Amino acid sequence: MYAARVSGREPARGGVVDLLGLLAYASLVAFFRLAEDASLAIALADKADLAGLAVAQFGHFQMLRERITQLGSDPEEAMRPFVEPVDAFHARTAPADWLESLVKAYVGDGIAADFYRVVAQLLDEPTRALVLEVLADSGHAEFVIKRVREAIAAEPAVGGRLALWARRLLGEALSQAQRVAAEREPLARLLAGDSTGQLGEIGRMFATLTDAHSQRMAALGLAE
Amino acid sequence: MYAARVSGREPARGGVVDLLGLLAYASLVAFFRLAEDASLAIALADKADLAGLAVAQFGHFQMLRERITQLGSDPEEAMRPFVEPVDAFHARTAPADWLESLVKAYVGDGIAADFYRVVAQLLDEPTRALVLEVLADSGHAEFVIKRVREAIAAEPAVGGRLALWARRLLGEALSQAQRVAAEREPLARLLAGDSTGQLGEIGRMFATLTDAHSQRMAALGLAE
Repeated sequence: MYAARVSGREPARGGVVDLLGLLAYASLVAFFRLAEDASLAIALADKADLAGLAVAQFGHFQMLRERITQLGSDPEEAMRPFVEPVDAFHARTAPADWLESLVKAYVGDGIAADFYRVVAQLLDEPTRALVLEVLADSGHAEFVIKRVREAIAAEPAVGGRLALWARRLLGEALSQAQRVAAEREPLARLLAGDSTGQLGEIGRMFATLTDAHSQRMAALGLAE
Repeated sequence: MYAARVSGREPARGGVVDLLGLLAYASLVAFFRLAEDASLAIALADKADLAGLAVAQFGHFQMLRERITQLGSDPEEAMRPFVEPVDAFHARTAPADWLESLVKAYVGDGIAADFYRVVAQLLDEPTRALVLEVLADSGHAEFVIKRVREAIAAEPAVGGRLALWARRLLGEALSQAQRVAAEREPLARLLAGDSTGQLGEIGRMFATLTDAHSQRMAALGLAE
């Protein structure tokens, strides 16, 4: 089941498989991390809500993995280069408590959705359709807004701590993303739209993601 | 959204909610345990397979929870009496390695399916339809058979260890089930089909589950 249509620009092919491998591995790990965080919740309803986010991530993983196979690549091979940076991100951002888990779920969901939106424009048609399908299935973390706002209302000092936490999450995500862009030439070329000023293009993409992140922080009631 | 039809025998109502609460909590915990076990796998494909089983369990949880709400009960309340026995079962059956995780997933999936099959006969029509739907979605653990047979072929001593492990899993499950039957009168009455010889009826149900378990162990290549 090789793809009937791929991008006209053959160099982009490796970039597409790289991108799908990165997104697939990130989704799989998000599933495990969210499930683990959810199991720490005390209330059964909280457990179930965060478990639901985990399950959505697993659905994304399955779709992305299937597309890698359709493109004639091995999903395990495609994911392997991204195991280390994705694992490093999570190792550096282990939530200390339930509220930090919630904020991490919300921030992660939001950054992922923004990233999907940006990369969709750069992809061949069948891959773009897949990415838009994954994107349509994001936004499950909206319930977090209410919980975080309630926690801040009950104890205003929580807001400052969570604002710092959210900033750290974004910083760690961008730091790992920079590392990936530097190490994976085909992916970097894809993300830069084959531009010669690759690093500048990627920097602009990160700036866009950062702006959107700031808007979400405002929605959470977290001053930057 | 109260149920339009409930069983004609009003005493069974508490039993049905008990049963749904037990199944819902067992599914939710199975989700977390399978996700945790899956995260310990080394190969990404193994991780993904067990994570898929976890996700199926979460789907069951969602269906069961919805039915509890339809019956006008609070899912959290309905699950609460079963938190301790279900948690105790898992605390006593923490897998020591990947193969034990696989066998636990397979045994658990099988016992659950047998149990759903038996209780379906005892339920009011809408609840029976739900239980049959959950049942139709079980059997995802069939991939385990191949893995376990391969492991035993490579190292025959593994077979004896896993056979003991499977027997312990069944024993712990029946022991917690006995405890639940003794403590939850409405549930015990439902399971015994309102028979006066309740404990005898429930004993016969357990014997049926044990027979089916033995057949599955033979399929796994585990001598009893």
